[in-house]
Amino acid sequence: MSVYFEGIEKIKYEGKKSKNPLAFHHYDADGTINGKKMKDILRFSVAYWHTFCFEGKDMFGGEIGRRAWNNYEDALKASVEKADAAFEFMSKLGVGYFCTHDRDLAPELETLGKTNDLLDRVLTRVKENMDKTGIKMLWGTANLFSSPKFTDGAATSSDPEVFAYAAAQVKKALEFTNDLGGENYVFWGGREGYETLLNSNTELELDNLARFLSMSVDYAHKIGFKGQFLIEPKPKEPTKHQYDYDAATAYAFLKKYGLEKHFKFNIEANHATLAGHTFQHELRMARLYGSLGSVDANMGDYLLGWDTDQFPTNIYDAIWAMYEILKNGGIAPGGLNFDAKIRRNSTDIKDLFKAHIAGMDTFAAGLKIAAGIMEDGKIDGFVKQRYEGYDSGMGARIRSGDTNLAELEEYIIDKSVSVPKSGSQESLEAMVNDCILNYD
Amino acid sequence: MSVYFEGIEKIKYEGKKSKNPLAFHHYDADGTINGKKMKDILRFSVAYWHTFCFEGKDMFGGEIGRRAWNNYEDALKASVEKADAAFEFMSKLGVGYFCTHDRDLAPELETLGKTNDLLDRVLTRVKENMDKTGIKMLWGTANLFSSPKFTDGAATSSDPEVFAYAAAQVKKALEFTNDLGGENYVFWGGREGYETLLNSNTELELDNLARFLSMSVDYAHKIGFKGQFLIEPKPKEPTKHQYDYDAATAYAFLKKYGLEKHFKFNIEANHATLAGHTFQHELRMARLYGSLGSVDANMGDYLLGWDTDQFPTNIYDAIWAMYEILKNGGIAPGGLNFDAKIRRNSTDIKDLFKAHIAGMDTFAAGLKIAAGIMEDGKIDGFVKQRYEGYDSGMGARIRSGDTNLAELEEYIIDKSVSVPKSGSQESLEAMVNDCILNYD
Amino acid sequence: MSVYFEGIEKIKYEGKKSKNPLAFHHYDADGTINGKKMKDILRFSVAYWHTFCFEGKDMFGGEIGRRAWNNYEDALKASVEKADAAFEFMSKLGVGYFCTHDRDLAPELETLGKTNDLLDRVLTRVKENMDKTGIKMLWGTANLFSSPKFTDGAATSSDPEVFAYAAAQVKKALEFTNDLGGENYVFWGGREGYETLLNSNTELELDNLARFLSMSVDYAHKIGFKGQFLIEPKPKEPTKHQYDYDAATAYAFLKKYGLEKHFKFNIEANHATLAGHTFQHELRMARLYGSLGSVDANMGDYLLGWDTDQFPTNIYDAIWAMYEILKNGGIAPGGLNFDAKIRRNSTDIKDLFKAHIAGMDTFAAGLKIAAGIMEDGKIDGFVKQRYEGYDSGMGARIRSGDTNLAELEEYIIDKSVSVPKSGSQESLEAMVNDCILNYD
Amino acid sequence: MSVYFEGIEKIKYEGKKSKNPLAFHHYDADGTINGKKMKDILRFSVAYWHTFCFEGKDMFGGEIGRRAWNNYEDALKASVEKADAAFEFMSKLGVGYFCTHDRDLAPELETLGKTNDLLDRVLTRVKENMDKTGIKMLWGTANLFSSPKFTDGAATSSDPEVFAYAAAQVKKALEFTNDLGGENYVFWGGREGYETLLNSNTELELDNLARFLSMSVDYAHKIGFKGQFLIEPKPKEPTKHQYDYDAATAYAFLKKYGLEKHFKFNIEANHATLAGHTFQHELRMARLYGSLGSVDANMGDYLLGWDTDQFPTNIYDAIWAMYEILKNGGIAPGGLNFDAKIRRNSTDIKDLFKAHIAGMDTFAAGLKIAAGIMEDGKIDGFVKQRYEGYDSGMGARIRSGDTNLAELEEYIIDKSVSVPKSGSQESLEAMVNDCILNYD
Repeated sequence: MSVYFEGIEKIKYEGKKSKNPLAFHHYDADGTINGKKMKDILRFSVAYWHTFCFEGKDMFGGEIGRRAWNNYEDALKASVEKADAAFEFMSKLGVGYFCTHDRDLAPELETLGKTNDLLDRVLTRVKENMDKTGIKMLWGTANLFSSPKFTDGAATSSDPEVFAYAAAQVKKALEFTNDLGGENYVFWGGREGYETLLNSNTELELDNLARFLSMSVDYAHKIGFKGQFLIEPKPKEPTKHQYDYDAATAYAFLKKYGLEKHFKFNIEANHATLAGHTFQHELRMARLYGSLGSVDANMGDYLLGWDTDQFPTNIYDAIWAMYEILKNGGIAPGGLNFDAKIRRNSTDIKDLFKAHIAGMDTFAAGLKIAAGIMEDGKIDGFVKQRYEGYDSGMGARIRSGDTNLAELEEYIIDKSVSVPKSGSQESLEAMVNDCILNYD
Repeated sequence: MSVYFEGIEKIKYEGKKSKNPLAFHHYDADGTINGKKMKDILRFSVAYWHTFCFEGKDMFGGEIGRRAWNNYEDALKASVEKADAAFEFMSKLGVGYFCTHDRDLAPELETLGKTNDLLDRVLTRVKENMDKTGIKMLWGTANLFSSPKFTDGAATSSDPEVFAYAAAQVKKALEFTNDLGGENYVFWGGREGYETLLNSNTELELDNLARFLSMSVDYAHKIGFKGQFLIEPKPKEPTKHQYDYDAATAYAFLKKYGLEKHFKFNIEANHATLAGHTFQHELRMARLYGSLGSVDANMGDYLLGWDTDQFPTNIYDAIWAMYEILKNGGIAPGGLNFDAKIRRNSTDIKDLFKAHIAGMDTFAAGLKIAAGIMEDGKIDGFVKQRYEGYDSGMGARIRSGDTNLAELEEYIIDKSVSVPKSGSQESLEAMVNDCILNYD
Repeated sequence: MSVYFEGIEKIKYEGKKSKNPLAFHHYDADGTINGKKMKDILRFSVAYWHTFCFEGKDMFGGEIGRRAWNNYEDALKASVEKADAAFEFMSKLGVGYFCTHDRDLAPELETLGKTNDLLDRVLTRVKENMDKTGIKMLWGTANLFSSPKFTDGAATSSDPEVFAYAAAQVKKALEFTNDLGGENYVFWGGREGYETLLNSNTELELDNLARFLSMSVDYAHKIGFKGQFLIEPKPKEPTKHQYDYDAATAYAFLKKYGLEKHFKFNIEANHATLAGHTFQHELRMARLYGSLGSVDANMGDYLLGWDTDQFPTNIYDAIWAMYEILKNGGIAPGGLNFDAKIRRNSTDIKDLFKAHIAGMDTFAAGLKIAAGIMEDGKIDGFVKQRYEGYDSGMGARIRSGDTNLAELEEYIIDKSVSVPKSGSQESLEAMVNDCILNYD
Repeated sequence: MSVYFEGIEKIKYEGKKSKNPLAFHHYDADGTINGKKMKDILRFSVAYWHTFCFEGKDMFGGEIGRRAWNNYEDALKASVEKADAAFEFMSKLGVGYFCTHDRDLAPELETLGKTNDLLDRVLTRVKENMDKTGIKMLWGTANLFSSPKFTDGAATSSDPEVFAYAAAQVKKALEFTNDLGGENYVFWGGREGYETLLNSNTELELDNLARFLSMSVDYAHKIGFKGQFLIEPKPKEPTKHQYDYDAATAYAFLKKYGLEKHFKFNIEANHATLAGHTFQHELRMARLYGSLGSVDANMGDYLLGWDTDQFPTNIYDAIWAMYEILKNGGIAPGGLNFDAKIRRNSTDIKDLFKAHIAGMDTFAAGLKIAAGIMEDGKIDGFVKQRYEGYDSGMGARIRSGDTNLAELEEYIIDKSVSVPKSGSQESLEAMVNDCILNYD
């Protein structure tokens, strides 16, 4: 078996004073927070597509270089070598999970039948690697956006043959996700939307999308898949408007079609910001809908209008993501998947490690700080006190739903009502900074 | 009774060749489209606040000038004169409806009791003016955002006294809307949201908002209000995040709390664009939710991040708004309310007329062109043909829900699936331009 | 010689009532406006890259289909066939100009020497086609962004070998542009910027960019190139920040390095909006800098944060672009280049024609309406009157620079100064709509 | 003399472990960094308008409450009390500077003559307070945007009387800034721009703006003002387009009119982000133009499209701002002015202190970390190494301008040029995080 990352040893935890870029400075996999191991809270996952398939292409330029494991003529050979490289990388990085599309594992051939045959042969090797390394599948999914046939959508294509093809592709992806013990199955509908309302039957498209999801759930149950279904919202790109715009829009869709019991959300930081929300906002809303399922841990650039999929290195965002996850009682069976690609000019193969380490360290620090904030209780206590009016008297009756407009009018009509007590945003922000600056 | 718009006669329709800025060039109130009078399709409404209260203030400067009708020391006198000016204006403009907040009609005094007493005296004059002119109330609402007490929200305030005050204010607003025959009642929650998640109990706030709406519906039913309830989505401003972000978010909220049967949406163009959507998108989505209730007809600036509330003069937007409204079978009991203010440097009082005329003419032209597009059938026909695969064979079975993944796999596994037929966006856009350039 | 657009005849002008999508409805090449032929005012150009090279790739999916002329193994054969297809297309479309990068004509080989040899052989065929059809080159340019070596920039690369390579590439591009009688030469620095300030020596990069431009001008003069140099501003994409952000930024750069005499701007609509400006704003500013050189006629989507490069079909934008161009005394030796690509799901080869026709018709209508607005004089007259205070008295002295603060203080200190007369934005917008709706 | 901040003592430095919100945790005024006192590097200033005039108004609601010092009928009394409150606040806070508009100090009366008389009487008290406390004026300016007369602009008004009024106002502001020893004078042209190009003579407006600045410089020199002139760029709000869009645009303007020697820039964080740039970008560009003059230290919200003017609490932004300032050799005679307002629901008067403390602590921490990064040298060293190719050989000749296209072609034509070495963005970001997380 080829070695693709020569000279790299298993990445170790060296503590916050370390200057070694190939060591963890904050992520101590077996270190504990609130009695749980960090690795079991964070459940880090590598994204097969960005780390093992992507080679630097952008809209204005091609691949920066061919990865050694992709540099084979034969499709099966290339796919098997990629799998070997992937598990070598993940083992050395020390991550417990991976996520993949069907087409990341092996390419599409002329018919789905042939494609599935090739895929099966690659899956055998993936399975062997999983067994050998103990690395598990966080989630599987079907790529329903790269092939030209999906240019108008998959479940929402104007062409029923495309719908059928997509359905068959999901069937296979559900099967292998189930076979590999995948803990979740994700739907990201990158082309499920419209380019212009001028040529779109949005009503039919939305109905078809619901039918597609419903059939998929039925089939998954039939084959005994016990994992969690996830919808990954994104507002746009490549499509002008994607139907799963954000958590709220996806929830509205699920509720309209009676599908909300079957799906949770896979929240991606960069998708949140493209939709005009903070990462924490989307996590919070998903949590309040009872739908926080998993997280694509990356980072966008607020000043750029496309999905930059950067490795997450913003400490604030990591703190608040982990805060929401801790409030949610954890994220399992979901995890933190690095749906992130190294910058195009990060041209050293070691950058693949360094970038993942940067992301893992950022989230580890975020976890420690978030746990500290919760333990300290100052911020939660502030919020509790701010709303304490609802704990007794008329406030409690409002909260219990046990009053009405007429009664409330009588209660207030002759009172002088003053401005609420301070929201203290500036002080709270300073408190958070102190938590960061006192990090230990 | 004072005359405030001297020298202005009732605005007449003079046809598209007219150069008179104080005449309609496209809006012929009694002209018919598809057998219905334009005025009955368009149902134009003047916004009391922008046209009779607003005097040019912005964040960096004060009022540009005091309107004559506002230039009285005594609150009752000023309010009565404002009402007279309003109905003089609306009569001369030839519009059938107005919309108002409680506080547009009369100011707030020290207690709600005193405020309501003053309001009742002003309402008498409003009623007289309505009877005299035949102008009706499209919708009423309560201003739950201007008073300092609402700085944290009304139904979502951290302080139950504020909740109670807001509830009592809605009670009164429902009463006078009912008394005046208002055809709709609107909830715009400009402060129902958060400034920072750091200090917010979003869960309690959302629960309280639902309780508030529920109590309001109960009370309205109790007093026999037969009008339609509307929620007006807006994503932000003044609040960092408003809970009713867009139509989808508001629908998700209503469904979560089981309130969707009671509410439709009042879609505002400028709120749509602030949320990252086109005006037509929001109208379409509201329509597909079965929730298109009414429209705030204005226009924003895509390059500015705040609610500019400009008078709507974009023909494209007017065409597609009217297209969605016609597809909806009309907008009644809703209407097209000009939630728009003249620019700060439109300092001539005649600009109030000219701006409304500009808006009415734009929507009248939009209506004629949209009706022409629908009658011609080319664009709808293109869409029908594009999706015709779903009318028969496997497509029809997908549409009827009468198939499953296994069957679809069998159907497609050995087929070669090609790219769908052209979406023809460029041609369709050219067709629309031709409809505009052949306007008659 | 192969025929690639069988069944398509030369596109004819059929007038505004025509429903034929393969005819002009508004663009009458030899029709006159103010005594000049439309084709001589509009100077339309086809973009070689979008129309003959692009095959539908986006960030989430590959080519939609291979164009017949690109479907050859041999690089020379493919390039020659592409040239033939291009001139067949342009002849049938009836356009007078084309624009091209070096690499659109022929691909890059292992060394620049070999690349230039291949290019020379293709240029022979291009020249023959130009002679045969009479179609001229609007501008040439070098592609300094697609090759992996340019990932950090070309003139602003961190590596001097890349600088040298780019310089040599520009040398060759200047030579062939000169040989083919190209009327302009364009610099678009898609990668001349930074991804992060963390790793960038911005000072050195900007200095190098100035040196690069300076050397290029020197060489062009040396070989007798008489055309106009153009810089094409764009704010970002693919780069996080591009140094030529917008017209003002590029002008600041040129002035700082004393290069402003040598360069004008190629203003692109979609780049304007990505920079937060309207298309007209950028044209106006370039015009006021004395730097309006040429135009990339396309259209973006205000709600999308990337360069969608749509064919321009917005009548308003076309009117105001043509208004600025007419005020500029025309655009020659520049022109209107369709830097636009058909939508990914415009999968019919006829869409290439239909899209260009849509763009040409839109600009033709825009030209007629803009010329009408100028002839009518109402809007210009309004502006003249608005500022007439500067034509006499103290206003005239301000304008001539013949006063000072002390004198102005004395003049005004005891005066009461009122609000300026109305800016009448709403009326002016309605006037513009009437010009569109009375189009003939 | 009244005491307005009873119960507040002079704010002390208590170190990073302190939990006291009325103490500094990071800002130790007399502590040294690189041998200079923190207070002399940071040169903090309070903004008179936000802290002593602003009372919570926003576009959807009025003042939250009247400050005690503003609660006087008599204009002189109110202004004097405000001055006393201001200096009490600033003394207790321990800040060395303040910034003010003319109208912050005293209101406008019917004529400029009367206004100036009142202002003179208030200035006497301000001067006394300055002498007593040792607090100095960082910069003065004239408010040329709040009065209705400025709705169309001041120097760019359509009305020459408004130009004259503005000129006279600047004359007076220059005089008192000079009298009070103000170290800078700022021009922020909030209304110097356009609402619509339809009604604007942009050419005349820009010429007039240049004349206005020129006259101002002349007068300042005449009265012996030795301070620095600053232009404060902002892209928009309240105006649709402001001529001083960003640093590059303002520099282009100055260069066009030959004014660049007289002006530097006052860079505001929130204005940078509204213009589509990071705060650091604007500081870097201003620095490279040789024009970094002073800083408005605040913070915006990337997801909101208006000037939120929040107190700066983002550590990353503070680090990079201080990094640019240190690279600039400091900011004097400019400083860090908190052009920031407390949130509308920060309703406790102590929030005024807490918010300033939050901002000062953030910048103090930012300074320490930035100085550490520079001392450590890792990041600067990385950059140096990245561009080392320009230190010798052909790179050095490029850098010295001692080569040309022909020579570069010869050098490279047969070479194979590879991808540049890694930009290592992810590693550099992780290094920055480690600097924060190892803060001491």
